Amino acid sequence: MGDTLPVIRREVTMIFFFATKHHYFINFHESQIVIFFQKSHLKTLYIVLTSKHHEGFTNFPSPYSFNWNSVDVGPNRDLVGELSKAIKAHRGMKFGLYYSLYEWFNPLYQKDKANGWTTRDFVVNKMTPELKYLVETYQPEVIWSDGDWEPQYTYWDSPGFLAWLYNDSPVRDTVVVNDRWGSTMACSHGGYYTCTDRFNPGTLQPHKWENCWTIDKQSWGYRRNAHIWEYCSIEELIQVLAETVSCGGNLLLNVGPSHDGTIKPIFEERLLQMGVWLRVNGEAIYHSKPWLHQNDTEVSDVWYTKRTFEDGSDKVYAILLDWPATGTLVLGAPKFCTNTIVNLLGWPQPITWTASTRGPEIVLPPRQQVVTDWAWVLVFQGLCNDKS
Amino acid sequence: MGDTLPVIRREVTMIFFFATKHHYFINFHESQIVIFFQKSHLKTLYIVLTSKHHEGFTNFPSPYSFNWNSVDVGPNRDLVGELSKAIKAHRGMKFGLYYSLYEWFNPLYQKDKANGWTTRDFVVNKMTPELKYLVETYQPEVIWSDGDWEPQYTYWDSPGFLAWLYNDSPVRDTVVVNDRWGSTMACSHGGYYTCTDRFNPGTLQPHKWENCWTIDKQSWGYRRNAHIWEYCSIEELIQVLAETVSCGGNLLLNVGPSHDGTIKPIFEERLLQMGVWLRVNGEAIYHSKPWLHQNDTEVSDVWYTKRTFEDGSDKVYAILLDWPATGTLVLGAPKFCTNTIVNLLGWPQPITWTASTRGPEIVLPPRQQVVTDWAWVLVFQGLCNDKS
Amino acid sequence: MGDTLPVIRREVTMIFFFATKHHYFINFHESQIVIFFQKSHLKTLYIVLTSKHHEGFTNFPSPYSFNWNSVDVGPNRDLVGELSKAIKAHRGMKFGLYYSLYEWFNPLYQKDKANGWTTRDFVVNKMTPELKYLVETYQPEVIWSDGDWEPQYTYWDSPGFLAWLYNDSPVRDTVVVNDRWGSTMACSHGGYYTCTDRFNPGTLQPHKWENCWTIDKQSWGYRRNAHIWEYCSIEELIQVLAETVSCGGNLLLNVGPSHDGTIKPIFEERLLQMGVWLRVNGEAIYHSKPWLHQNDTEVSDVWYTKRTFEDGSDKVYAILLDWPATGTLVLGAPKFCTNTIVNLLGWPQPITWTASTRGPEIVLPPRQQVVTDWAWVLVFQGLCNDKS
Amino acid sequence: MGDTLPVIRREVTMIFFFATKHHYFINFHESQIVIFFQKSHLKTLYIVLTSKHHEGFTNFPSPYSFNWNSVDVGPNRDLVGELSKAIKAHRGMKFGLYYSLYEWFNPLYQKDKANGWTTRDFVVNKMTPELKYLVETYQPEVIWSDGDWEPQYTYWDSPGFLAWLYNDSPVRDTVVVNDRWGSTMACSHGGYYTCTDRFNPGTLQPHKWENCWTIDKQSWGYRRNAHIWEYCSIEELIQVLAETVSCGGNLLLNVGPSHDGTIKPIFEERLLQMGVWLRVNGEAIYHSKPWLHQNDTEVSDVWYTKRTFEDGSDKVYAILLDWPATGTLVLGAPKFCTNTIVNLLGWPQPITWTASTRGPEIVLPPRQQVVTDWAWVLVFQGLCNDKS
Repeated sequence: MGDTLPVIRREVTMIFFFATKHHYFINFHESQIVIFFQKSHLKTLYIVLTSKHHEGFTNFPSPYSFNWNSVDVGPNRDLVGELSKAIKAHRGMKFGLYYSLYEWFNPLYQKDKANGWTTRDFVVNKMTPELKYLVETYQPEVIWSDGDWEPQYTYWDSPGFLAWLYNDSPVRDTVVVNDRWGSTMACSHGGYYTCTDRFNPGTLQPHKWENCWTIDKQSWGYRRNAHIWEYCSIEELIQVLAETVSCGGNLLLNVGPSHDGTIKPIFEERLLQMGVWLRVNGEAIYHSKPWLHQNDTEVSDVWYTKRTFEDGSDKVYAILLDWPATGTLVLGAPKFCTNTIVNLLGWPQPITWTASTRGPEIVLPPRQQVVTDWAWVLVFQGLCNDKS
Repeated sequence: MGDTLPVIRREVTMIFFFATKHHYFINFHESQIVIFFQKSHLKTLYIVLTSKHHEGFTNFPSPYSFNWNSVDVGPNRDLVGELSKAIKAHRGMKFGLYYSLYEWFNPLYQKDKANGWTTRDFVVNKMTPELKYLVETYQPEVIWSDGDWEPQYTYWDSPGFLAWLYNDSPVRDTVVVNDRWGSTMACSHGGYYTCTDRFNPGTLQPHKWENCWTIDKQSWGYRRNAHIWEYCSIEELIQVLAETVSCGGNLLLNVGPSHDGTIKPIFEERLLQMGVWLRVNGEAIYHSKPWLHQNDTEVSDVWYTKRTFEDGSDKVYAILLDWPATGTLVLGAPKFCTNTIVNLLGWPQPITWTASTRGPEIVLPPRQQVVTDWAWVLVFQGLCNDKS
Repeated sequence: MGDTLPVIRREVTMIFFFATKHHYFINFHESQIVIFFQKSHLKTLYIVLTSKHHEGFTNFPSPYSFNWNSVDVGPNRDLVGELSKAIKAHRGMKFGLYYSLYEWFNPLYQKDKANGWTTRDFVVNKMTPELKYLVETYQPEVIWSDGDWEPQYTYWDSPGFLAWLYNDSPVRDTVVVNDRWGSTMACSHGGYYTCTDRFNPGTLQPHKWENCWTIDKQSWGYRRNAHIWEYCSIEELIQVLAETVSCGGNLLLNVGPSHDGTIKPIFEERLLQMGVWLRVNGEAIYHSKPWLHQNDTEVSDVWYTKRTFEDGSDKVYAILLDWPATGTLVLGAPKFCTNTIVNLLGWPQPITWTASTRGPEIVLPPRQQVVTDWAWVLVFQGLCNDKS
Repeated sequence: MGDTLPVIRREVTMIFFFATKHHYFINFHESQIVIFFQKSHLKTLYIVLTSKHHEGFTNFPSPYSFNWNSVDVGPNRDLVGELSKAIKAHRGMKFGLYYSLYEWFNPLYQKDKANGWTTRDFVVNKMTPELKYLVETYQPEVIWSDGDWEPQYTYWDSPGFLAWLYNDSPVRDTVVVNDRWGSTMACSHGGYYTCTDRFNPGTLQPHKWENCWTIDKQSWGYRRNAHIWEYCSIEELIQVLAETVSCGGNLLLNVGPSHDGTIKPIFEERLLQMGVWLRVNGEAIYHSKPWLHQNDTEVSDVWYTKRTFEDGSDKVYAILLDWPATGTLVLGAPKFCTNTIVNLLGWPQPITWTASTRGPEIVLPPRQQVVTDWAWVLVFQGLCNDKS
């Protein structure tokens, strides 16, 4: 089947993702979410909302889910519609939707399952018309399908749906999809590959992929009794971002909203901290590609990316997760030529480097004067590594 | 269309009907309902439960109404299944189901409506498979369809459904239906005619019909703030019963259960009073037919029925809603012959009658010795009216 | 102590009583209750509301029960005040209050109990100021105290409170009290005696007493899952009334309102039936006294009362719970003289009686012409029994 | 009155305070709170819980607040008792209680108010016995009274209560109180002065005082829809701490628990951040006193404290809220002698200083090697300022 599936059409750098199976959401303010992300300095941003999770409750008024959707029950609001509209009104943000193919408790699905997938009543009467309705009504630019357990893609008719999506749907020119369109498809077919949750291989991947990460170390949903030590610190998140991008992946960063629809301040803090960091260091992330090396051969916790500019020139970026105690650094991967130029993001002057017996020694400026925390990015121009 | 519709197949004398749009019912005890009706001495009894009302909530786990049914939401019980099973375990009671064809808020129905009934998504995807599922699963002996507003029978495909019901369904040999299968069908096509609610014409009807009456004078549903004077008295109910049966109709007597599933004592009182009356006087009601006259020409509030027995003999019944103040009675409708015999139900000896200038004068026994209240039944054998 | 307690000051014939421990009552309509009783033809009527039951929740905004009263919690209404005001606006109804002295869960009461009643913090800080506040604010004409378990009257200082009530309170000239003012007082001290619940001795009592009866055979409170056969029939209630009044008692007839404050129709039915009966037969009840005999010596289920009129003449009333099957009656208790006159309430002419070997034979009129049901009252004038 | 009031008996350095008017708290885990604070490296810590706020609901089973307390209603737990027990089991934490003298809605208080405070029923029957019960039962080491509006101390009989507290209560030797014991007392009488909420004068105060600060910039209670920018950052909190301690005050730092009793992660983050800072820099805070100067005359955002050790020697601490961009610093307040020694908390070696034309120039080490963030503390020994 793989060859017949359309491939991903555009690059995705970072996706934020709100998983929810709650349906109260009385304090959900779509415009605040938009304003928040505008403030955050996060760019090339897809905001992806859960339109339906495994229990089948839809966060939009699905005609195929009468009385089990967020307009008829719970908040009495079209959450998908409100957020979609708010996001599309702003440049720099894109709107996407998560959609669970299966519904654990739907009697039609259960009957098909009991019949060993020889019947397809659930797909015909529920899933396919609903997913098409969703695409036509809200025109999402990501469809993050969740369906990699249980039946094969033939049951779901994924090729049929994707053919419609890429050829006839209103988002045929822009939409991006993942790989969870049927059992055994994850990590081998589809758009970008998500493989397993929190997939973070640490090595370069041959196919475009995504690291589906959660700020809460344990859960995709909000846990009201979580403690601070159960959330990733900003240092941990930047590390995951560096590792992921260096190996050619996107970072999906999940935030679970609370049952009343609010995003709790600890998530805002982490997202804002990431925005603060990216405001200075985003050049190493946005529009970057993997380099020859993913991480350094001599110094631990140094990850590389690369960008090629319109004039054909390249820059290689080294993301340092630690500031060297001595203030100096000898890296193993970059090969310096005499005209190699080194810069540090957040520091105005070029950085001095000198040849030494150990190799080119980079002398960092005083840390207190560098306008960034948590990780630092060196930029190399004119390296003499083989064409990278 | 009428000619192609199957006609009603068996006689129905009385139907009890529980309307409900509530879905809590935590105190619903199907076995108590059965025991109650057994105690009540009510016979030839159909107990009809609302399986789905206009809002679409099903009192059974409809595969086509996921999460909007009484197993998934509310009492978490299959009310239709429990009552069905309890009733079928007892002789003398039959089980029936009310089913609202339309659903006011169902988006598929609303879409079809907006399309001027040129689309039929609601019927194809929801109504028809659900109603067939209902019949196959619970095998009701009455289907009391509610669908006489809005679209025509062609939208509903009522002929198709009824053809299946009468030819191929598991209840094809016993099922009875009413007339509300599409706009303008009521009172002109279908099984028995219900015409309008509380239809009580007072004259003989050419087609088998049903008087759909409610004990609460204002409402089919239970009203928790109703007062005693807003319920029919037992005298009023017996009057309605007499008028209905005399004119060839069945009585449907509605009881609205409270939101927790209990039948309130005032309803039990009325049903038990009716059973007390029928225990003595049921002979005039069960298996009866209309007589030549429906009510008396001289004395008001006297209604007639008739029965023909296996040996070809006839009895004519006069239901007196008032006990004559003088204790004697001269009726206008019956023509007495010399061998006419008069009895009074609940009184062991024949009743004396004497010719008088006003006609045959019937002398009633002392009222306190007659073991019935509220209405009294005279039985005539050997009347000389034209062949009746 | 008994001698020091004031005695009851006025005659009480019948008390209606609403027990409630619920505190929702959103549908409580005090004016409907008043209208209802006006319709009911019930006279000399005390309507007594529970102001506080054993759990301590007050149906009025007690300053000594902050946040545990019906204004702060639940219906947010002053139920005692509203009903009091509505009743007092109408002639023929009097307002009374039930008040539980103890409160099972009040920590002050529990502490006093743990101290073997040697401390009296609960009485000093809670009960006495609250009960005085209740009397001063609402001026009830009955105080139906409930306090005959646990501590003695000395703990409660009942003599002190009653002295204040009868000498200094705003209701000192009219108030009536019962006998439950401390352990061992019931049936021996106080105003009228209530003894135990449903006390119905069947013999003349030396002290004014009250039969505290409930329409629900099992409960003072409303039971939402009760069945009709668990309520007294009207025949049973009239029997209890006859037995009670014949023996010198009042009838207290309890109705438990439902949790939303409505009086369910079955209670309305019983109260209206009693009013229908009393409209014809009330002369034998209101302002009556016990006669020489309480019930008949020869005929069962015949109970006697008596009234003395302003001109010194007497009438004796025989309440027949059954209508004699033969239509004639020979009573054992009344001694007829030649000028003895017999009447039947609800029948316009005097009743014929004739001497017979069995005694004076009373010939009743046709039952259907007597405008009453359930029980019938014979009235005797000029009996020759010893001064009665 | 002031002269007769006992003065504060011991030094308080920092108080944490949980304001709550909610009463659900199903997830309140007193032991987690204790463990959390143990982890936090916060020392000399009073944890103060709201025992009763203005609405009168008590977080303990007050015998004087039947059914309006956390055992009878809501969580059904003795929150004060549980937290008290958990805290007292650990060294280094002390337990205190907030108590609102008045209750806005208590009818006894309202009556006293309507009487122009000429009656004192509320104080006699409710407040005084309740507060004594609280002290006797839980033995708090802080009583944070809230009563500086409305009536004077004479209404409350604050001198009487405090005399009992300091002379006869079980905590007479250790208890600390604030100043809100009646109208006009705040900032002029009582134990330590709290004056107004968030009182932060910036100058040395003659009397021991407390800065009552909230992490939420707007509210003492938890706001579920608050955003991250409405909370103080760790930099802001350390600034407030430095300013407060330099001027002789304690810092009370309020955290509002959510309605289910959890402490949200953002509060945990701030408290842990403060603990991280104090672990290195606490020497400048705990047991410190104001110095000659409160803040520096030349460099902004530098605040001073001082400690005197057992051997009579002194240390002066300069808290730098900013790290100087140049890495060098010339302060105005300290007068250096030749043997003045300068250290930096979190840095192992003495700090070099050299005489310059601008004064003694302090050369800081590389910032990245100093094991603290947000603010830094210089320690001076052997300064030549006048005896400080």
